[in-house]
Amino acid sequence: MDRDTAFVQFLLRMGDNDLVLGHRVSEWCGHAPVLEEDIALANTALDLIGQTQMWLGLAGEIQGGKTADDLAFLRDAWDFRNVLLVEVPNGDFGRTLMRQFLFDAWHSIMLGRLLNSTDDRVAAITAKASKEVAYHLERSGDTVVGLGDGTAESHARMQSALDYLWPYVGEMFTSDEVDVEMVAAGIAPNPADLRAEFDALVQRILSEATLTIPEGAFAHKGGRDGRMHTEHLGHLLTQMQWLQRAYPEASW
Amino acid sequence: MDRDTAFVQFLLRMGDNDLVLGHRVSEWCGHAPVLEEDIALANTALDLIGQTQMWLGLAGEIQGGKTADDLAFLRDAWDFRNVLLVEVPNGDFGRTLMRQFLFDAWHSIMLGRLLNSTDDRVAAITAKASKEVAYHLERSGDTVVGLGDGTAESHARMQSALDYLWPYVGEMFTSDEVDVEMVAAGIAPNPADLRAEFDALVQRILSEATLTIPEGAFAHKGGRDGRMHTEHLGHLLTQMQWLQRAYPEASW
Repeated sequence: MDRDTAFVQFLLRMGDNDLVLGHRVSEWCGHAPVLEEDIALANTALDLIGQTQMWLGLAGEIQGGKTADDLAFLRDAWDFRNVLLVEVPNGDFGRTLMRQFLFDAWHSIMLGRLLNSTDDRVAAITAKASKEVAYHLERSGDTVVGLGDGTAESHARMQSALDYLWPYVGEMFTSDEVDVEMVAAGIAPNPADLRAEFDALVQRILSEATLTIPEGAFAHKGGRDGRMHTEHLGHLLTQMQWLQRAYPEASW
Repeated sequence: MDRDTAFVQFLLRMGDNDLVLGHRVSEWCGHAPVLEEDIALANTALDLIGQTQMWLGLAGEIQGGKTADDLAFLRDAWDFRNVLLVEVPNGDFGRTLMRQFLFDAWHSIMLGRLLNSTDDRVAAITAKASKEVAYHLERSGDTVVGLGDGTAESHARMQSALDYLWPYVGEMFTSDEVDVEMVAAGIAPNPADLRAEFDALVQRILSEATLTIPEGAFAHKGGRDGRMHTEHLGHLLTQMQWLQRAYPEASW
């Protein structure tokens, strides 16, 4: 695999995680339990979509002649490279925040390493994104603690969310030839090397939240390498892409 | 309004009712409570989609150069002419069958009149469709009676379905200048003239089902004249049209 091919795959993975999670979080707009949370979720979604524009914009530039919009709205499910964690349905507010926390924890550690990328464009995108994500993590972590160590009902829901989502965590730390190439180029770290820091961080917060990490190392996989997405991604893209598909090249 | 313009509107109303209800019913495929019902629902959906092809095919022919597929997959929500009743979400099995019964009752009476249409093409489509719809009505009527006069749970669900759906019934019997033109041409009856027969039929079956028709004459309107569809239609079309929008002119 040549370097540019691997680099594009890496950028799609970063951008598609942000895009798909951004879309999922935006589904809460107007539906959150209180106004404060509604606005916070909408802002998180906007941050993620903003980061998407940067990652996919760079991917399109390297591929030549494609825009972030082309990549977001004109690819079909099998060309998406996000991890499965971000495409699962929102469920209740607790599950949405637990998913956010697990993603934010990985995201903040990944961006911490990417600040030292040998590629200046990656380092520049990261400098902007990492500030936003530090705030996302602070907020989702606080909410996980507040609800986990809350009422019996909120505790049970957060434990249930963690049980549901934990099998999707492992995929964030898998590696393949794309990652080998990125490590060799000094562009990005090996995801497997982020796991220890992730486990320490997540363990600390979840303990404070009085929640128990499920046993077992099984991990759903297939999203970040595009082998197999869940059925949910197709439905999500159907909604997300409809306008651009129905009105090609619409702009405003 | 000239005759062809009115005729096309009439055909869109007939075809869009079938198309949208056919799509809704097809959503049950693989999800019905027992295999027998799953297959029956799928067959009903197929009948309705087959009728759609005939009605929209004729509408496209009169408009000139359009196919039934063009009209089904390339119009946006505001150009659809179905009554609101058929676009509401399925809800539970009971609501789906109650909606089917209310539509079948109207549909069978309407087709009974259209057998005498002065337009040979309309009469020919009707001859084929009316046999299918007679069977739909027999089946949905039997199910409404079986569930309405069933357990306390099934009775309560059917009454709840009837309460929810009844305000959507009135729209099927509204008239406007399109209908005036169709009556003048001898092509189709005035929908208002079908109401007495509908009320007698529905009253008889619902009595047998031990269900009570809600009081009040309020009717949701705006679908058959395209002034205002519910938000549900846009979501339905987004899913139904995605493939043709994403892969224009795809065929197989």
